[in-house]
Amino acid sequence: MDKLEHIGIAVKNMDQANKLFAGLLGTDHYKVEEVESEGVRTAFFNISGVKIELLEATRPDSPIAKFIEKKGEGIHHLAFEVTDIKKCMSDYQNKGFELINKEPKKGADNKMICFLHPKSTNGVLIELCEEIKRES
Amino acid sequence: MDKLEHIGIAVKNMDQANKLFAGLLGTDHYKVEEVESEGVRTAFFNISGVKIELLEATRPDSPIAKFIEKKGEGIHHLAFEVTDIKKCMSDYQNKGFELINKEPKKGADNKMICFLHPKSTNGVLIELCEEIKRES
Repeated sequence: MDKLEHIGIAVKNMDQANKLFAGLLGTDHYKVEEVESEGVRTAFFNISGVKIELLEATRPDSPIAKFIEKKGEGIHHLAFEVTDIKKCMSDYQNKGFELINKEPKKGADNKMICFLHPKSTNGVLIELCEEIKRES
Repeated sequence: MDKLEHIGIAVKNMDQANKLFAGLLGTDHYKVEEVESEGVRTAFFNISGVKIELLEATRPDSPIAKFIEKKGEGIHHLAFEVTDIKKCMSDYQNKGFELINKEPKKGADNKMICFLHPKSTNGVLIELCEEIKRES
């Protein structure tokens, strides 16, 4: 993995959380994006090159709704940038890490993403993400 | 706050976790440090300028032991670098954030630190940290 790309934080109410994190981080969110397939609405902050992604559930069966129900609001995942997500997934699987997704899927912020299961990573949900390149 | 300084992760067994995170991050930890006053042993990894700090309890009443008992292993806190921790603490208090520590205390990695209570920050335990300058 190349670098920490963002930190995902599960919140119940994005409008309230956007104000709270603006006060905390000293900067406003710069975009909001919905990922319908995942049942989440996201807001992004940037603090010196690391993104903070707030995640709000848009329906009751969203992974974020389930996470909050089980653990409460708080840090949901760490996302690391990779350059070849398919190769990276295969490398991690060979090292004994468990993948949640068999294939990369479309995430927020123009990325293909995949998660490693927290039971194989000391309780930390890890996202691998690769920027989708535009066709030239 | 200036930038994300590190991410703290609570682990039960540091030796096992050091091997697991070396495989995950593709780099070994570069130092181990005990903070006796906090009842923790820490190991540091660096991935493109962001530190990952593994935290293992050294006694049963350590905050890390209590965290793991309650929530299991996983992400414990986000630490942000600040330049004047006392002023910063006062500013956050004035904004309505709740401080866990009334005064900065000595943390790992040559830092003065203070925590904001997660009940005022959407469930995210936030550490403010300032590098201790050497007397010239």
